Amino acid sequence: MKIAVVGTGAIGSYYGGKLAYHGCDVHFLVRSGLAKIKRSGIRIRGKKVNFHIARVQTYKSADAIGPCDLVLIALKATNNEALLQLISPLLHSRTILLTLQNGLGNEDFLAQHFGADRVMGGLCFICLNRISPGLIEHLDYGYLTIGEFTGPPDSRTRAVAQEFQESGVTCRVVDNLMQERWGKLVWNIPFNGLTIAAGGITTEDILQDDSLHSAALALMNEVIEGAKGCGYNLPADVAVEHMKRTETMGAYKPSTLLDFEAGRALEVEAIWGEPLRRACTRGTAMPCLEQLYALLKSLNARRE
Amino acid sequence: MKIAVVGTGAIGSYYGGKLAYHGCDVHFLVRSGLAKIKRSGIRIRGKKVNFHIARVQTYKSADAIGPCDLVLIALKATNNEALLQLISPLLHSRTILLTLQNGLGNEDFLAQHFGADRVMGGLCFICLNRISPGLIEHLDYGYLTIGEFTGPPDSRTRAVAQEFQESGVTCRVVDNLMQERWGKLVWNIPFNGLTIAAGGITTEDILQDDSLHSAALALMNEVIEGAKGCGYNLPADVAVEHMKRTETMGAYKPSTLLDFEAGRALEVEAIWGEPLRRACTRGTAMPCLEQLYALLKSLNARRE
Repeated sequence: MKIAVVGTGAIGSYYGGKLAYHGCDVHFLVRSGLAKIKRSGIRIRGKKVNFHIARVQTYKSADAIGPCDLVLIALKATNNEALLQLISPLLHSRTILLTLQNGLGNEDFLAQHFGADRVMGGLCFICLNRISPGLIEHLDYGYLTIGEFTGPPDSRTRAVAQEFQESGVTCRVVDNLMQERWGKLVWNIPFNGLTIAAGGITTEDILQDDSLHSAALALMNEVIEGAKGCGYNLPADVAVEHMKRTETMGAYKPSTLLDFEAGRALEVEAIWGEPLRRACTRGTAMPCLEQLYALLKSLNARRE
Repeated sequence: MKIAVVGTGAIGSYYGGKLAYHGCDVHFLVRSGLAKIKRSGIRIRGKKVNFHIARVQTYKSADAIGPCDLVLIALKATNNEALLQLISPLLHSRTILLTLQNGLGNEDFLAQHFGADRVMGGLCFICLNRISPGLIEHLDYGYLTIGEFTGPPDSRTRAVAQEFQESGVTCRVVDNLMQERWGKLVWNIPFNGLTIAAGGITTEDILQDDSLHSAALALMNEVIEGAKGCGYNLPADVAVEHMKRTETMGAYKPSTLLDFEAGRALEVEAIWGEPLRRACTRGTAMPCLEQLYALLKSLNARRE
């Protein structure tokens, strides 16, 4: 299976790196830091995961890679317009596009431009930090949940999952990708959003302050209702489970907060705007999310 | 009528200054900038209002002022604990305490410590900016709404109003002070709050952005419901009227935002926390306010 990785931030470097380290034929399209990655390779360092790929197949242009069987898309959703140029040279008639991006709308974007049948989505449950091009700090977790955009999983879904599994990435295949995305948003919407809007606090700060904790719960419940309005019934205990898991994280700063603090663009639309619009279109009001979205959009725009 | 002014920020300097300029016997208790005010007096400058009081009766301690008939309280609500020391020497058996502070809870604080019968409240509709001690920039408006804490207005309420009127301050006497306070919060809660939490924007920015405008309206409606839950039925058009008035303000930065940007403490509890608690106690949920309160409390705390 010939694989391309578009976007060599933390996510692309980690999952592409895992595949390459275990012998897959992986081609990295690198938009910034090409010389460094060519020279030093990709290093993932952390207490639980630690590996180095000295020689990485890197490319400045998608044309030089040519058609692939699988394309991992790990650009920020704010850069999706760039994908129009980057992906075309990577396509043959059965190329799979697997987006590992956050939030809602990325599969739809790919489907609109390259055909829905090609599209798969993946949810990354991982804490990473890009230190510099090719140097990624692994903090925790690492598993992947993948599914088909247009329907239930089939043999190709399982084939992709197997590639990951064989490369040491726990990969679960799910029946309903969009339901999984909504389930993940139950966490991302409050915790990624409030940590930023409250001035750069940790998940622990939210859990320890009564008002912030209430605000997080109210957002979670809105997202659960929003999902239901869109036809996705999340498990009854989804909020409780997320809260329990958050308690084990300690003073964690979500990656979007780190991005924000480093001056990088927030994926405001994918994480907050698109869920809000989808729920509103189906008649579910999300007033707390609307306020948070409005604040984040303003905070994000004022730095540009 | 012997009058003391406690707090010589923008509000105390302006209203105390108006009374002094028109010949009332006004004694200013000055906590910072005493030498400057002693030397240069109080100057209010602006396009519509412009006056200078060269010789101001200033005092470092309340003991030096002694008992007064009327005390204007214009400290930040965050400094209320200081009032316990400052007010006692100013009291005789019939001294009126008129708080010109923002939000809810200030009358209650005074009532608890000095007796409810003494307490009156005033709402200031004015745009001011303190440049330095004794130097206040007047931007717009200037009228005052006063009422009794414990019941309907009586002869003393009208006597106080007359002092202001004769000093050129339009002063309206109201039957239901707390209802007026809730009515003002319908504006202050969204506009003071969102301009800060969105990263330092103007009221115009809120009106021009669909999401922020929706968020402001949602907060207004929550405050109207919260007021109703506490027994105050605000006029049906209160939100519409506030929005109309806001449209005439242009790119206005509320004083709380200027305070926040200047590193001064926010009156988080008086403006956001106390209304939330009062409504919740009466069974009215205010989820949007709860989120905004949580964010502002965190933003405020992180600067201290």
